[in-house]
Amino acid sequence: MSQILDIDEISARLRAFADERDWNQFHSPKNLSMALNVEASELLEHFQWLTEQQSLSLTKDKLAQVETEIADVLIYLIRLSDILKVDLNLAVNSKMALNAQKYPSDKVYGSSKKYTEYE
Amino acid sequence: MSQILDIDEISARLRAFADERDWNQFHSPKNLSMALNVEASELLEHFQWLTEQQSLSLTKDKLAQVETEIADVLIYLIRLSDILKVDLNLAVNSKMALNAQKYPSDKVYGSSKKYTEYE
Amino acid sequence: MSQILDIDEISARLRAFADERDWNQFHSPKNLSMALNVEASELLEHFQWLTEQQSLSLTKDKLAQVETEIADVLIYLIRLSDILKVDLNLAVNSKMALNAQKYPSDKVYGSSKKYTEYE
Amino acid sequence: MSQILDIDEISARLRAFADERDWNQFHSPKNLSMALNVEASELLEHFQWLTEQQSLSLTKDKLAQVETEIADVLIYLIRLSDILKVDLNLAVNSKMALNAQKYPSDKVYGSSKKYTEYE
Repeated sequence: MSQILDIDEISARLRAFADERDWNQFHSPKNLSMALNVEASELLEHFQWLTEQQSLSLTKDKLAQVETEIADVLIYLIRLSDILKVDLNLAVNSKMALNAQKYPSDKVYGSSKKYTEYE
Repeated sequence: MSQILDIDEISARLRAFADERDWNQFHSPKNLSMALNVEASELLEHFQWLTEQQSLSLTKDKLAQVETEIADVLIYLIRLSDILKVDLNLAVNSKMALNAQKYPSDKVYGSSKKYTEYE
Repeated sequence: MSQILDIDEISARLRAFADERDWNQFHSPKNLSMALNVEASELLEHFQWLTEQQSLSLTKDKLAQVETEIADVLIYLIRLSDILKVDLNLAVNSKMALNAQKYPSDKVYGSSKKYTEYE
Repeated sequence: MSQILDIDEISARLRAFADERDWNQFHSPKNLSMALNVEASELLEHFQWLTEQQSLSLTKDKLAQVETEIADVLIYLIRLSDILKVDLNLAVNSKMALNAQKYPSDKVYGSSKKYTEYE
């Protein structure tokens, strides 16, 4: 069984949701980038006092809360991409190709340095 | 033509990317939530001094940079969800159902108040 | 009347607060940087759907909430600086001197471009 | 020797800095809250792949970079507080009094739970 996200279908539902509430006036890319950051930080909050090890074995309750925040981030990301007409597949593929160039595995093996830190 | 994200396929590529670089040691959910926030803020940075109106009509160059940041956020979101075994479709559908309940259109029409602000 | 922050005194109170609760175990710089970001985003949340104009004329209630978030950010910033032994005066003065160099007023007058965008 | 921040003096210098560059037009509280979040995330970035232990023993170079980001957060915090006429001493004292109430030491000793999680 495969996990597929139908971005067009979700975008259409988000568009209808905003239309029905007259919320398009609030959904400038500027504002949506703020809302996305707020949700990303609510995700961060769940992990702030956990050790890395603890973050790998969340309780069922905690995981459910984390899932909700992940959904919120994704919802604003899809909404923003719809308004800016960003093709998410193209964007992800381009970025992954760039990352493969910036981080050649023989050079960065086992290291977390930023690519600007390699000479 | 429809925009579909094959989450399993992207997850598999991200897993291979991390494996080849011995980066799994860095990819705890805690760390990934931090990386996701860093990318979300790089997205925010593009909009910080723009008016809302300007954020709606980005130059081609600026839009290309914004797309890269959107891709980065999405990549970390998919990677985190893979590690936590979050079903993104389920998460999005549940959250959208919850939002419909929290924000009935007749009550919130044209208003951006948080649902906790409605009595 | 002058506004003075006695950083040493506040740091000492924050240290006592953590000691009394056995919270030093949680206050690694990594974790404190996360907590600071969470608070910074709670500040952001108050402004996300406001126009810039509206953000300049907050209601008394809203302003009180914003003040609380500003305090939270400052508290974590002072706590983090105490642990890392950062001299905040020195840090601010050095950064302001650097900013004066990076952004000469005749070059950036009326423009919000990042210094990397000036040739 | 005591560490004192003269907020009025720093505010005045930041005001002059913005005036000389005609930057007041960009410094709405909304935009400043965004800039503050961007800087807070640049601080976060330094810690994202470090263990908590590593974050406690930064190299001299890394610490210098972290100091710069701390300064950036503080600068935007002071600038925002100046524009909103927030008294930082009052704000910090009020919040610390509230925290003492929300987190009684006998109840939260050694625990990092959020106050809403205590019944």
